[in-house]
Amino acid sequence: MTKTAAIIGGGVIGGGWAARFLLNGWDVRVFDPDPNAERNFEEVLGNARRSMPGLVDVALPNAGNLSFHHTMAEVVEGATWIQESVPERLEIKLKVFQTLQKHCAEDAVIASSTSGFKPSELQEGAIRPEQIMVAHPFNPVYLMPLIELVPSEVTDPALVAKAKEVITSVGMFPLHVRKEIDAHIADRFLEAVWREALWLVKDGVATTEEIDNAIRYGFGIRWGQMGLFDTYRTAGGEAGMRHFMAQFGPALKWPWTKLMDVPEFTDELVELIAGQSDEQSGHMSISDMLRIRDNNLVAMIRALKGQDFGAGALMNSHEAGLRKGTILSARIDELEDVSQPIMTVRRAVPLDWTDYNGHMNEAKYLQAFGDATDRFMEMVGCDAEYIATGGSYFTAETHIRHVDEALAGALIEVRTQVLMGAGKKMHLWHEMYEGDQLLATGEHFLLHVSLETRRPSNPSDAIVAAVERVAVAHVALGTPEGAGRAVGQRP
Amino acid sequence: MTKTAAIIGGGVIGGGWAARFLLNGWDVRVFDPDPNAERNFEEVLGNARRSMPGLVDVALPNAGNLSFHHTMAEVVEGATWIQESVPERLEIKLKVFQTLQKHCAEDAVIASSTSGFKPSELQEGAIRPEQIMVAHPFNPVYLMPLIELVPSEVTDPALVAKAKEVITSVGMFPLHVRKEIDAHIADRFLEAVWREALWLVKDGVATTEEIDNAIRYGFGIRWGQMGLFDTYRTAGGEAGMRHFMAQFGPALKWPWTKLMDVPEFTDELVELIAGQSDEQSGHMSISDMLRIRDNNLVAMIRALKGQDFGAGALMNSHEAGLRKGTILSARIDELEDVSQPIMTVRRAVPLDWTDYNGHMNEAKYLQAFGDATDRFMEMVGCDAEYIATGGSYFTAETHIRHVDEALAGALIEVRTQVLMGAGKKMHLWHEMYEGDQLLATGEHFLLHVSLETRRPSNPSDAIVAAVERVAVAHVALGTPEGAGRAVGQRP
Repeated sequence: MTKTAAIIGGGVIGGGWAARFLLNGWDVRVFDPDPNAERNFEEVLGNARRSMPGLVDVALPNAGNLSFHHTMAEVVEGATWIQESVPERLEIKLKVFQTLQKHCAEDAVIASSTSGFKPSELQEGAIRPEQIMVAHPFNPVYLMPLIELVPSEVTDPALVAKAKEVITSVGMFPLHVRKEIDAHIADRFLEAVWREALWLVKDGVATTEEIDNAIRYGFGIRWGQMGLFDTYRTAGGEAGMRHFMAQFGPALKWPWTKLMDVPEFTDELVELIAGQSDEQSGHMSISDMLRIRDNNLVAMIRALKGQDFGAGALMNSHEAGLRKGTILSARIDELEDVSQPIMTVRRAVPLDWTDYNGHMNEAKYLQAFGDATDRFMEMVGCDAEYIATGGSYFTAETHIRHVDEALAGALIEVRTQVLMGAGKKMHLWHEMYEGDQLLATGEHFLLHVSLETRRPSNPSDAIVAAVERVAVAHVALGTPEGAGRAVGQRP
Repeated sequence: MTKTAAIIGGGVIGGGWAARFLLNGWDVRVFDPDPNAERNFEEVLGNARRSMPGLVDVALPNAGNLSFHHTMAEVVEGATWIQESVPERLEIKLKVFQTLQKHCAEDAVIASSTSGFKPSELQEGAIRPEQIMVAHPFNPVYLMPLIELVPSEVTDPALVAKAKEVITSVGMFPLHVRKEIDAHIADRFLEAVWREALWLVKDGVATTEEIDNAIRYGFGIRWGQMGLFDTYRTAGGEAGMRHFMAQFGPALKWPWTKLMDVPEFTDELVELIAGQSDEQSGHMSISDMLRIRDNNLVAMIRALKGQDFGAGALMNSHEAGLRKGTILSARIDELEDVSQPIMTVRRAVPLDWTDYNGHMNEAKYLQAFGDATDRFMEMVGCDAEYIATGGSYFTAETHIRHVDEALAGALIEVRTQVLMGAGKKMHLWHEMYEGDQLLATGEHFLLHVSLETRRPSNPSDAIVAAVERVAVAHVALGTPEGAGRAVGQRP
């Protein structure tokens, strides 16, 4: 099998497919009559290159070659995979397939990105209908794993098997839709929500922004990890799906949506759903599922916290409120006494900082010490506003000693001593505690740099003064045990 | 305002509310006639205690007091917030409100967790209807930020304002639903999807598992960060919402869902939606939004990767395929020549490893070096299977020197030299490169421990032999520049 894909029709979808193949080492040949096609492709590819390689923790293969072609005859040369992403008009698609099949290999997969058409519709008048199927992706194609793979009754099963293999090999998930239907599966849900949302806006119940917030602060995050049925399975408690259905079955008759054409709520339907749910997730107990769900939700919300967006931005704002009025938001010049080590971190060890045994991971010790350093910088005046003026401290060296372990949920504190602080230089000593128990020490040497030149530079006078005030006060604390030591050096 | 909340009705929802308040420092008083109420509460609280504190990077306030009470008169004593989460039967709820209002403070918020009832329905026959509103949470209440806050026309606006303040103060988002409607907003979407899903299962189009996969590998992740309208705004390209609607408007008439009662697709509706979307997100260009979207999606998928679940599990499996057949999955005993430093990491710097300027964060250097250590351990036989038998290496000390910077997307490699390896001890030297440029060094001292006693213990003979083989071969490499140095020590 060659690793050559032909992309028919550019745009965001065609470009996304191209990126998937290219960055997984395939050669990609593009046919798109739009004179802007190359430029549009480069935009999508640029976004893909910056984001997609980070989905895995190993380098992707060397990228393949990208070429643009003027005829469909030329573009399918040597192609194992042919992806059609032309506009959603059946007559255009049918004409494209006819032209493609005159020139392409008979055992190439011809897949359509169509959102709505059934494969049997796409096969009308085709030279070899058995070669055609739907492979419906989700935007952005270079990040979203889902592909709805929909064959018709006449599509060659061997080609479907090959399609699954290719889709998996470029890091996507082929969802084999076994019975063709308008809009496949996912888009039926999207369309139902879209129609309901249009009603809500039209009727003045909610604005687009309110609707988006209703989605992204609630069920959107839930659905990012478990889907509809597993979410409800966990909501039913140990009794699972049957219990949930008994509880919410009656609501089917209520005007909870404009979609009032509902299936009859029979025992057979309950058994069908509950039985499938058992088969899907019966290997996990409900309490296991709850823990998995909570781990996932915390990890996803924290991921958004790192981006300061959506539910994560809410948490950052909540956090700022919690810090307010405590030592964790004070400035050095607001403190009367700086003779003791200063508390710079006080937090719980979150679930996503730990390994499967619940112990805090190695790299998270430096995360906490780095946070302690950032907090101390903020205290002396090297805050976001100052950094925006072009100066900051960079860590040059770090030495961490692990003394004891911390478990998920442990309340940890970091206290910071200034070993030396003068001019451009800052030498910090962090100790991490759980209660009275020392967990780890972090020794850090920092230099103030110009963010423009990335070379050492002098901090503002105010910062120098604040650092020196603490450094002078901390001289009396002496050198902590373990400071100044090299790795493996005996005490 | 006291920080005392009364929880009427336990279960998963009442317990989740209790956790929100308790862990944010409120006293919580519970009334639930169920004899299992205390036990059920402890279960929910246990799950909340392990997950909720990690939503923020600062410690939560000291938890409040939890008490159980036998009468509604007693439970509302001193309560500023009264949350009703009894079964979804209107007559029960009305009776509860009547009893509550005989005893509670007149300026307390009385909020119902109801999924479906409108506040005006809940106010029927109430002593003070103006005190009652809906505050509809999402499961798990201790993690999901969304609260649909729905007043009726007679609800006291001052109480609504107070309710918003309290909801925000416990880390949640009050979505003010301005016009009451059956099932509020979010559950209307959930119900539409639920009904459509029941049809698909009933008609044999898809199983519950296939539907869940269609959701969680696709639009679920998207909706975890932006909602419906912002997602479509970005799909419309620079032309935004109007373009998207022009493209997908006609689909409203197609049988893409069983929900066929659709609003008329008029110019007015397009303008209404597009105008609201502009107001919501017009402050960002579409290309900015695309970058934000991609950052969020990468961060969320990587969060799930850490949990080895959903889309993250797919990525782990893709990654294993990419490693296969390369040095990054080889064992030491499969290598003929181990005389040179061994490549242990080769990867791109992902978007969520960087600061807002695109530079790799301090803690991620240790993440990469820790991964390098893990990979070297795997190479010498200390893999998941071995660790399951009760032994592993723990890092005792780490020394990192930062030499140069790395940007998002940079292809980095770590090469590992064994400075010493004998018995329980392993002394590793990692060098991180981008191309020929040295970015950082990591010196690590590890001890093999028994996972049972957490004390030093001997590794298996096979591991000792593999480590020693590399250590002996690496003697010829000499001591790298910078090894054995303490922080701040001059070269």
